[in-house]
Amino acid sequence: MGFDAIEVIVTKRDGGELSTAQIDWVVDAYTRGAVAEEQMAALLMAILLNGMNRREIADWTKAMIRTGERMDWSALDRPTADKHSTGGVGDKITLPLAPLVAACGAYVPQLSGRGLGHTGGTLDKLESIPGWRATLSQEEMLQVIRTAGAVVCAAGAGLAPADRKIYALRDVTGTVESIPLIASSIMSKKIAEGTGSLVLDVKVGSGAFMKDVASARELARTMVDLGLDAGVRTVALLTAMDRPLGRAVGNALEVAEAVEVLAGGGPSDVVELTVRLAREMLEAAQVPNPKDPEQALKDGSAMDVWRRMIRAQGGDPDAPLPEANEVTVVSAPATGVLTRLDAYAVGVAAWRLGAGRARKEDPVSATAGVTLHAKPGDRVTRGQPLLTLHADDPARFERALQVLEGAYTIEENGTPDLLPLVIERIAG
Amino acid sequence: MGFDAIEVIVTKRDGGELSTAQIDWVVDAYTRGAVAEEQMAALLMAILLNGMNRREIADWTKAMIRTGERMDWSALDRPTADKHSTGGVGDKITLPLAPLVAACGAYVPQLSGRGLGHTGGTLDKLESIPGWRATLSQEEMLQVIRTAGAVVCAAGAGLAPADRKIYALRDVTGTVESIPLIASSIMSKKIAEGTGSLVLDVKVGSGAFMKDVASARELARTMVDLGLDAGVRTVALLTAMDRPLGRAVGNALEVAEAVEVLAGGGPSDVVELTVRLAREMLEAAQVPNPKDPEQALKDGSAMDVWRRMIRAQGGDPDAPLPEANEVTVVSAPATGVLTRLDAYAVGVAAWRLGAGRARKEDPVSATAGVTLHAKPGDRVTRGQPLLTLHADDPARFERALQVLEGAYTIEENGTPDLLPLVIERIAG
Repeated sequence: MGFDAIEVIVTKRDGGELSTAQIDWVVDAYTRGAVAEEQMAALLMAILLNGMNRREIADWTKAMIRTGERMDWSALDRPTADKHSTGGVGDKITLPLAPLVAACGAYVPQLSGRGLGHTGGTLDKLESIPGWRATLSQEEMLQVIRTAGAVVCAAGAGLAPADRKIYALRDVTGTVESIPLIASSIMSKKIAEGTGSLVLDVKVGSGAFMKDVASARELARTMVDLGLDAGVRTVALLTAMDRPLGRAVGNALEVAEAVEVLAGGGPSDVVELTVRLAREMLEAAQVPNPKDPEQALKDGSAMDVWRRMIRAQGGDPDAPLPEANEVTVVSAPATGVLTRLDAYAVGVAAWRLGAGRARKEDPVSATAGVTLHAKPGDRVTRGQPLLTLHADDPARFERALQVLEGAYTIEENGTPDLLPLVIERIAG
Repeated sequence: MGFDAIEVIVTKRDGGELSTAQIDWVVDAYTRGAVAEEQMAALLMAILLNGMNRREIADWTKAMIRTGERMDWSALDRPTADKHSTGGVGDKITLPLAPLVAACGAYVPQLSGRGLGHTGGTLDKLESIPGWRATLSQEEMLQVIRTAGAVVCAAGAGLAPADRKIYALRDVTGTVESIPLIASSIMSKKIAEGTGSLVLDVKVGSGAFMKDVASARELARTMVDLGLDAGVRTVALLTAMDRPLGRAVGNALEVAEAVEVLAGGGPSDVVELTVRLAREMLEAAQVPNPKDPEQALKDGSAMDVWRRMIRAQGGDPDAPLPEANEVTVVSAPATGVLTRLDAYAVGVAAWRLGAGRARKEDPVSATAGVTLHAKPGDRVTRGQPLLTLHADDPARFERALQVLEGAYTIEENGTPDLLPLVIERIAG
């Protein structure tokens, strides 16, 4: 069917509703190069400013999925479960979670991404493990799942290529911050990935993309609806990202913390969120008689899956993780209660130390990052270490220290005003 | 000064005000190719939807002017006057007006455009005169002015090149219909052209770009402010475009009608508007003791300027104008008063007959068009000719006749509900 790009743009510009046929055409034609970059940019800005309704968002998502292949796990003998986080600081949850859920009875085929900006990426973290490979063929993915029960790898180019192209365009045209476009981008990949169930971890707070509960709730609701409409059993949790998650921020540092959790230890917030998300995934996947996640952390079965999974992707789970050449310590300037430690500032500090990238072509440092010696609510004594900064190049410390000024508050007495770790649950 | 295109886009997207430095940078960088087409497209859509204030529009206009050269007529010994029409159906006013105002004492250096869509372009009309050339160097322009007192020609590529590039982008991205962008596009060229005074003819009605008085008034006010801020004595008239102007629509047909006016005849509405605009131009140009325009039409002095002007640009004012191979007549289906004759439908009919172009690369027919045998308010008798359609290719009649169905109303008794020819005057 032939449409005119200008007619589609003008419809949305003037506050109208795009028809299913218009959306199918424009997404496909743009992917094929028949609609120009500048035309799609104008349309994306009109969508950002004038919105899309539930039907339009569903059509937009389906149109993006149709531009590529769709994976199929129906030959597997267990239910499939996946989880997606909208990204945060210190959010290494996928690392312990994928093997944990596999240990409890589901298959976890998880396509992950790389970090951009101040939030880390799961693939960047795993690549700090010597030998580990992010890129697998669909054949290899299936083999890793059969061997280990879980696989975490990069999405192939064949999955929703429209999303890849549209995302790159949004990135340079100021059209990233649109709930319909964010939701359809995430969900097109997750639906095309073919998972039977999906748990969304929508982060809220300074370190997250969504700064307030209302917008996080709207994004979560939009994504849950998209998943359900596509036949994926989908549930979302809104979780706290006003302070960093756990005590490690940075690639190898977070892998080490994830391994602690799999060994039955680790920071309590990471353990709590991992277990909660595991229960949600097992329920959404409708695993019959699942193993209890707390038990699977204690008895080493989750760790077994982790080791098999890392090894199946070429990694050595026993190799020592790389460590930074240089460290510098930020000490507590006063005695009292740490009432605030801003997630965004810590994320930017880790980024500036080398853990993140400014442009998607940039490399990341495996070793750079920040270690937290106190979390909000902890009592600290003047002069005790508050944060350790890790970098290969000591020249990076200055700008990282700059952003940490004013990032924390110590009060003689007081309780921190924090978001609850799990704020809200959104289901069908 | 270095800015980031995304930051500029996001400022306007979020409803903010662009700084002078941001506007200067983005317009210049886009013109140089340092801001991508898709980034400018996103910014233009954000401007269309979120608007610009008076200061931003003035800065945007100045920034476009600065990307090119600025003409200077200060060496001339008479005041300069120019007129711009926002475009209509049968609007050939520039043709008699430029020589008339020159005959009354001002110099008229007028840069004109070509038609796009259903509205005609002055250059297309003049090109139906055998030998006439639209493209002149600045040297040649000055020579024609010195010889004839008036010159009507194409704007050189050196005048506000940013506007040329932005206009082409707006044309394919659904971002034409923005008052700040329309006003700055028109005024950047007029200010760069260096005229001392400017009269704007802002058309209102179905055949015009502005369909209602309120939006026409907003456009006129915006342009008058821009002109005054730039030191150009500027005034605007809102004039009727609910019905065609005069009795001829089409390139050579309109030249013939313009020559009738210059010979002291012609349709009363064309004469009235030409004389009114001439008086406004002479006043705005502050011509000392100007000749009376009605007198200059009667005594042949305006015609003398016309003949000198056409000849100075290579045209032969005595050569017969080309005529269409084929005509077809639409007869009145009833006896009564013609109470409505829709300007837009007549414009589209002329366009479909070949008088206009769909894309700017297309050629136009010199001879195609529509002749009106009755105007709203006239009594007609069943069977008498109402319209004559002219085309070189008779295959074009069918689609032109289609758009004319329902384009007119004949009532037994009645008076047409028309806009006054001159609706409103807007000055500083």
